[in-house]
Amino acid sequence: MNQSFRIEHDFLGEKQIPNNVYYGVQTLRAKENFNITGITNASEPLFIEAFAYVKKAAAMANRDCGVLEPKIAEAIIYACDRIIAGEFHDQFVTDLIQGGAGTSVNMNANEVIANIGLEYLGHEKGQYEFLHPNNHVNCSQSTNDTYPTAIMMAVHFKVKVYLQALAELRDSFRRKAEEFKNVLKMGRTQLQDAVPMTLGQEFHGWSTTLNDDIVHLTEAQEKLTEINMGATAIGTSINAPEGYPQLCVKYLAQLTKLPMTLAPDLIEATSDMGSYVLVSAMLKRSAIKISKICNDLRLLSSGPRAGLNEIKLPPMQPGSSIMPGKVNPVIPEVVNQTAFYVMGADLTICMAAEAGQLQLNVMEPVIAFSLFTSMNYMINAIHTLRTKCIEGITANVEVCREEVMRSIGIVTALNPLLGYETAASIAKEALATGKAIHDIVVLERKLVTQEMWDEIYTFENMVRPVYRKG
Amino acid sequence: MNQSFRIEHDFLGEKQIPNNVYYGVQTLRAKENFNITGITNASEPLFIEAFAYVKKAAAMANRDCGVLEPKIAEAIIYACDRIIAGEFHDQFVTDLIQGGAGTSVNMNANEVIANIGLEYLGHEKGQYEFLHPNNHVNCSQSTNDTYPTAIMMAVHFKVKVYLQALAELRDSFRRKAEEFKNVLKMGRTQLQDAVPMTLGQEFHGWSTTLNDDIVHLTEAQEKLTEINMGATAIGTSINAPEGYPQLCVKYLAQLTKLPMTLAPDLIEATSDMGSYVLVSAMLKRSAIKISKICNDLRLLSSGPRAGLNEIKLPPMQPGSSIMPGKVNPVIPEVVNQTAFYVMGADLTICMAAEAGQLQLNVMEPVIAFSLFTSMNYMINAIHTLRTKCIEGITANVEVCREEVMRSIGIVTALNPLLGYETAASIAKEALATGKAIHDIVVLERKLVTQEMWDEIYTFENMVRPVYRKG
Amino acid sequence: MNQSFRIEHDFLGEKQIPNNVYYGVQTLRAKENFNITGITNASEPLFIEAFAYVKKAAAMANRDCGVLEPKIAEAIIYACDRIIAGEFHDQFVTDLIQGGAGTSVNMNANEVIANIGLEYLGHEKGQYEFLHPNNHVNCSQSTNDTYPTAIMMAVHFKVKVYLQALAELRDSFRRKAEEFKNVLKMGRTQLQDAVPMTLGQEFHGWSTTLNDDIVHLTEAQEKLTEINMGATAIGTSINAPEGYPQLCVKYLAQLTKLPMTLAPDLIEATSDMGSYVLVSAMLKRSAIKISKICNDLRLLSSGPRAGLNEIKLPPMQPGSSIMPGKVNPVIPEVVNQTAFYVMGADLTICMAAEAGQLQLNVMEPVIAFSLFTSMNYMINAIHTLRTKCIEGITANVEVCREEVMRSIGIVTALNPLLGYETAASIAKEALATGKAIHDIVVLERKLVTQEMWDEIYTFENMVRPVYRKG
Amino acid sequence: MNQSFRIEHDFLGEKQIPNNVYYGVQTLRAKENFNITGITNASEPLFIEAFAYVKKAAAMANRDCGVLEPKIAEAIIYACDRIIAGEFHDQFVTDLIQGGAGTSVNMNANEVIANIGLEYLGHEKGQYEFLHPNNHVNCSQSTNDTYPTAIMMAVHFKVKVYLQALAELRDSFRRKAEEFKNVLKMGRTQLQDAVPMTLGQEFHGWSTTLNDDIVHLTEAQEKLTEINMGATAIGTSINAPEGYPQLCVKYLAQLTKLPMTLAPDLIEATSDMGSYVLVSAMLKRSAIKISKICNDLRLLSSGPRAGLNEIKLPPMQPGSSIMPGKVNPVIPEVVNQTAFYVMGADLTICMAAEAGQLQLNVMEPVIAFSLFTSMNYMINAIHTLRTKCIEGITANVEVCREEVMRSIGIVTALNPLLGYETAASIAKEALATGKAIHDIVVLERKLVTQEMWDEIYTFENMVRPVYRKG
Repeated sequence: MNQSFRIEHDFLGEKQIPNNVYYGVQTLRAKENFNITGITNASEPLFIEAFAYVKKAAAMANRDCGVLEPKIAEAIIYACDRIIAGEFHDQFVTDLIQGGAGTSVNMNANEVIANIGLEYLGHEKGQYEFLHPNNHVNCSQSTNDTYPTAIMMAVHFKVKVYLQALAELRDSFRRKAEEFKNVLKMGRTQLQDAVPMTLGQEFHGWSTTLNDDIVHLTEAQEKLTEINMGATAIGTSINAPEGYPQLCVKYLAQLTKLPMTLAPDLIEATSDMGSYVLVSAMLKRSAIKISKICNDLRLLSSGPRAGLNEIKLPPMQPGSSIMPGKVNPVIPEVVNQTAFYVMGADLTICMAAEAGQLQLNVMEPVIAFSLFTSMNYMINAIHTLRTKCIEGITANVEVCREEVMRSIGIVTALNPLLGYETAASIAKEALATGKAIHDIVVLERKLVTQEMWDEIYTFENMVRPVYRKG
Repeated sequence: MNQSFRIEHDFLGEKQIPNNVYYGVQTLRAKENFNITGITNASEPLFIEAFAYVKKAAAMANRDCGVLEPKIAEAIIYACDRIIAGEFHDQFVTDLIQGGAGTSVNMNANEVIANIGLEYLGHEKGQYEFLHPNNHVNCSQSTNDTYPTAIMMAVHFKVKVYLQALAELRDSFRRKAEEFKNVLKMGRTQLQDAVPMTLGQEFHGWSTTLNDDIVHLTEAQEKLTEINMGATAIGTSINAPEGYPQLCVKYLAQLTKLPMTLAPDLIEATSDMGSYVLVSAMLKRSAIKISKICNDLRLLSSGPRAGLNEIKLPPMQPGSSIMPGKVNPVIPEVVNQTAFYVMGADLTICMAAEAGQLQLNVMEPVIAFSLFTSMNYMINAIHTLRTKCIEGITANVEVCREEVMRSIGIVTALNPLLGYETAASIAKEALATGKAIHDIVVLERKLVTQEMWDEIYTFENMVRPVYRKG
Repeated sequence: MNQSFRIEHDFLGEKQIPNNVYYGVQTLRAKENFNITGITNASEPLFIEAFAYVKKAAAMANRDCGVLEPKIAEAIIYACDRIIAGEFHDQFVTDLIQGGAGTSVNMNANEVIANIGLEYLGHEKGQYEFLHPNNHVNCSQSTNDTYPTAIMMAVHFKVKVYLQALAELRDSFRRKAEEFKNVLKMGRTQLQDAVPMTLGQEFHGWSTTLNDDIVHLTEAQEKLTEINMGATAIGTSINAPEGYPQLCVKYLAQLTKLPMTLAPDLIEATSDMGSYVLVSAMLKRSAIKISKICNDLRLLSSGPRAGLNEIKLPPMQPGSSIMPGKVNPVIPEVVNQTAFYVMGADLTICMAAEAGQLQLNVMEPVIAFSLFTSMNYMINAIHTLRTKCIEGITANVEVCREEVMRSIGIVTALNPLLGYETAASIAKEALATGKAIHDIVVLERKLVTQEMWDEIYTFENMVRPVYRKG
Repeated sequence: MNQSFRIEHDFLGEKQIPNNVYYGVQTLRAKENFNITGITNASEPLFIEAFAYVKKAAAMANRDCGVLEPKIAEAIIYACDRIIAGEFHDQFVTDLIQGGAGTSVNMNANEVIANIGLEYLGHEKGQYEFLHPNNHVNCSQSTNDTYPTAIMMAVHFKVKVYLQALAELRDSFRRKAEEFKNVLKMGRTQLQDAVPMTLGQEFHGWSTTLNDDIVHLTEAQEKLTEINMGATAIGTSINAPEGYPQLCVKYLAQLTKLPMTLAPDLIEATSDMGSYVLVSAMLKRSAIKISKICNDLRLLSSGPRAGLNEIKLPPMQPGSSIMPGKVNPVIPEVVNQTAFYVMGADLTICMAAEAGQLQLNVMEPVIAFSLFTSMNYMINAIHTLRTKCIEGITANVEVCREEVMRSIGIVTALNPLLGYETAASIAKEALATGKAIHDIVVLERKLVTQEMWDEIYTFENMVRPVYRKG
């Protein structure tokens, strides 16, 4: 291939840059330096978009403050708009996990924007004397305010997608709760038969617990609007003109429609990772709950003949290469595993947050990586769970009902009438002999009449609060 | 010692109980069954107090509903009041980590209350026909609503103490921020010299970040008022009289002055551990931050001669058995370690939360244990940090000032005047030759006059936003 | 109480010491400085014993090297012997989690030994001019070699107890495997019925997996004999006489009967925590496995009527305060929770190991704390599991057998005869109609004769490798 | 594109399969079912290779046992050889994280092998009556023995690459240790100046600690040769002909040159994840150590003027978009982050291991995913650390030497001569006045002569054990 190069330099020396790429010397160094995951920033469109918003808002603020000429600002804004439109994602070539606290991503953005802008202004790529990555595109900025701001916004955007997935799953459980509201079954505590309930109540509980996560994650998301633009290097706002931070925030709010605010303590905001620890904790919380639900789904669908067999998950694939006819709960299984990934990622995030030193947390890239992948995987998992499992679940109504009537646990409803100790002796006899509670109570010991029995053990009375004095 | 015994039984059989103890047969079984940590519930007075509140409120609600005779309710309330007053803590003898999802603690409470009440009523301990642990003390209750409710309240109480400790630490940092507001020093990013700031700004950042934790932990604490009293066994409220749950909550709110509410989905509330996952996450968040601060304190006080040596921590003890005169940052060190404990405990809590099955989370005791110990240890650590370290910190003002003036980083302030590339070439020369930035800029290259230099590098200009166009 | 004091001093100043205690001024400072867990070194007799061995060996080595007078060495040895005999455990009063990398424990030992020795020599406590905690007891030593050595030995001692507990549990499973060797039951993969096996095979698997842990933990234990005595402050052996390190190791080996060796790189050995990371990983591994086994035990004993109900755990206590007759798997439950504690403690240890800096890991106390408590709790849990659960398990033989014969999974044995696809169609019909495999195969489709069926489905053929060509 | 399809079916129904692909209906279902990470098995060539070895060995064993016709076996072997040669990696299209415990990967292999073999035999893809994915390719096998075996082998292969990277890093540190053996510097404990050492000793310590990891990881790798081929569904070897397991293992050993052995308890081996927990623990151990080393490198290179500045890392890229001339330790930073990833992945693995139930661990795919990515990332990180950082480190010899002579810590060498308390008073005076130890000892207090001083503080005496009696 007949490829031409341009020469770029930084204070470490010169390098050849292929003429067809928009990034420059510092991006190329970073590409060579950081080859860890093979997953580049290009794989996170929301992050690239967020970074372009940051650079655009900064250019507008710089223009208003009189520190960037309008023509220069216009070229930067033009470039950012094209990036936002998705035209240059492939130019963001550095690894998501990188050293330098994001300097390489920031310089990647600065260089790409400068070169798009240079072409817009009628110059060639690399003619930075007309539009400079540092002096102009990065004007009044540092990696230490732009990178954290862009990550925060990208996380905000992605949490929105996550919340949507959670809400759809919650609604799916709610619909199933309604569908199963008359399916009587045994409740279980400690895996031991307890007292009756409905399958609808069980599904409703799952919708409730997810709704609670939606509430908390939404609250956590709201913290993701406090940014440190204008902090520059360490929060003292060195080299930022007066009024610039406020303008940046104003323009970012306009561009994103998010209620952005300026952090009240820029020193603190520049090194603190608390917001990500919080968001990760809430993600983990939802992963824990969804994992617990998947555990329950696998238990309830166990069998078909030597298990609980209360519900049937939609069969997705043959379950075994050797056991014919076996169908496994493969969807809950993959969701469990994704939840374990999220819990591991949370640990990574917490260790990285703790490892920050002095005025910056240099471990922020792995925090971003972990949040991005956790959310990506869980969004996929939640969507899969809903569409390929929950929506197709059916109840084995007869199995559920029969286990209630042959259970020991129904003796509990007799406590108020007979006292705990008498009830316990009935239970003990049932256990020892295999007899039904009904037979001991009504037929043998004649402690209650058949009529009373029937009234006590109506469907309604078994699953709603009823008290009957002895 | 001439000790007499009484005989008690449950459906597993009879056991001898020393006559001088207030607990009964089921407590004794649990004491024998669970010998894991050697740390009993007696070590958590706030939890015992919370449990007594629960039992008292239940008795009042049962009385109002007409399912407990007033005299019986009165005896229970009397017993609870004495427990709340701290008279019977030593009777709570079961291990904090136990199987049975708290049944043993609940029965421990039921038995102790029954026996105190029996004496109040003029009977002997063990004459349960007059006041029964299950039928009366546990009336309309299950372990599965009383135990979670008591833990939630105990955690609420303890979070209050934790918040107080955090607030005192925050205030201590604020006072130091004021004290050090004129101490100029180098800021550092990635452990490399960056640009100037004040030591006061650094301490202020720490106070800000802790204040943020106080806000979030307070929000988390507010979730700890939604309880499941009246859920009984699994949330269907089996055996609870109508109106009882609401009365329970009302009385608990009165007794504790906390804004208790009834969980809207009792099935969900009975098995969900989300509130503890949330509280633990917020505890961990504050531990991470405090650990980061302690890391910084140890860095900034490193030396005395081959380290940063910017601040001096109060010497607490000779630092070495072999190196005379060595004084170590022992207080931050112990706080770091406590923070690591908290992070480990959070993992325990998350695993336990995930392991809940179906209608109950049987792992709740280890969640309570982990939250209690985490908070106990961290409250001690925070108090120790404040009183034995932060309050006695002094600044090495001269060391701080000198490192600023001999730094390379101050060249950053010349960017707007000279452009990034010229500034970089100055930095490069300074690094290579060991010269001061001032000498290169003013004396050699004569890029700015001494007058301009003096104006650029006033104290105020170095630590507040100032922009100067080239 | 009429208590008298002596005055002691260190380079921070003077303090009053109660005359009846053997520790001195530095211990008292540490007691005041570190009030975190309330759990003191006195609670770890093996660690105190190990520390006394270290001090005794050092005195012997110093004596042989001619740097301690024989009379002084004799007094030190006398004191160590009394400590080893358990007479002075209560004098080890500092918190297990402490700053200073163990200096306070080392000085605690130095002071206690000095004062016991002083009395032996006919002096009063505190007359350190005759026997000095630093100059004599700590001669040729530093905290940085004595403390790690003592911890390593204490961990070694405790692992031995742990291994014993594991071995007893393994043997218990083996005995049960033999007892249940003829109990045919369904095996399950992914909670779905798979193919037949025996209950004995299941228990045997558990014994095998624990045996594997015993092998690995024993290997890890063997690494705990490489010590850094003689490294002194940082591994350069400053102030240690020639030959002293080797003598120390020789005497320690004699005293403890352990094959102690000197670390080949004392610089590395002084800061490295790798051995503890390894031991903790192996503890965690066994905890994970035991937790998995407990999960299985709870599953297999679920029911009694709406669960798997294959085995019956010995009832340990009434299971519910509200549900009469309920018996819960409380012992496995408490073991699960203990395992979660161990996993959290492993995280604490790993974070602490990572946080070491330069020539020392100052976080070693929390590593020791976590290892000690993990092992203490798990030893108790394993013992509890064996004696209160495993040994009393009985099989529900009929339940087990019936579920095999009505299962779909037995069709797998027909694959070689009929091919996977025909077998799958039989399975599908059975699932859809509720029929038994036997009936479809033998009676309806007549694919095999009753004779062949009987031969294929003998007990032996179902649980041992048999291949039958189509 | 003019694409033709073939129709395949399984017991869930029919699906269209593009004619140009070698996988079949079950693979397609899995591709549709599991869309979590977007990372497919195709990205792990070592795993695909391992799977092909397994299938080849099974075919050879089946042929020898007489249960596969030679022609059929030949076709399977032919197909496996082409896969091993790398021709069909793109046909392994399922997500690395999947439900079904690996069934989809096994069926993917079975289908691809069948179709390659069919073409070899002169048939068309999909004509499974001549060569069936289940009946022939999967003959005598189950997912539950082939998948674990293939993962174990793939992990074994990858650990080898990891060990190579570790060994190169160790050697690099050793060379640097030799290079820096005469650079005298201060050792530090608890970040406080301690006593002198050489920079060579410090680097040597790092090589030693990595060598220790190599030893342990090699031991862990050796456990990865015990496989469960022939266990089939659950370890009872159902449908496997006599002698087949042994033949499988023999052939696998021949093909891979690894000392494969048959697990002694196939029931246990089929569900146990202990080997992966072990390997992950050893990976984590090395990650912890490398992270600690990177922390040290960043500390030692801190500055350049307000830090320790003992060493200089090779500059890899401009360090800041705002601070000219700033060069950051970007390589150690990215390695730290990778280590945190590994620690998170270990948690994922442990949770997955604990979550196995009964006869299988269905979470094995996420264990494989986590091990693969951990090793991939760390291998990259270790390689990057060595080539882009360690090999180019230079020492700031003068800085190192000067800090020793102006330190307080050198007073320690006078303990044996003057006693701890006199030495402490010298240290105290030096600290208070800023004087040098030399001046106080030799010039003022005249405690030692200049001659003695010179002899005590020779280079050799400062960094090797020397004892001097008072």
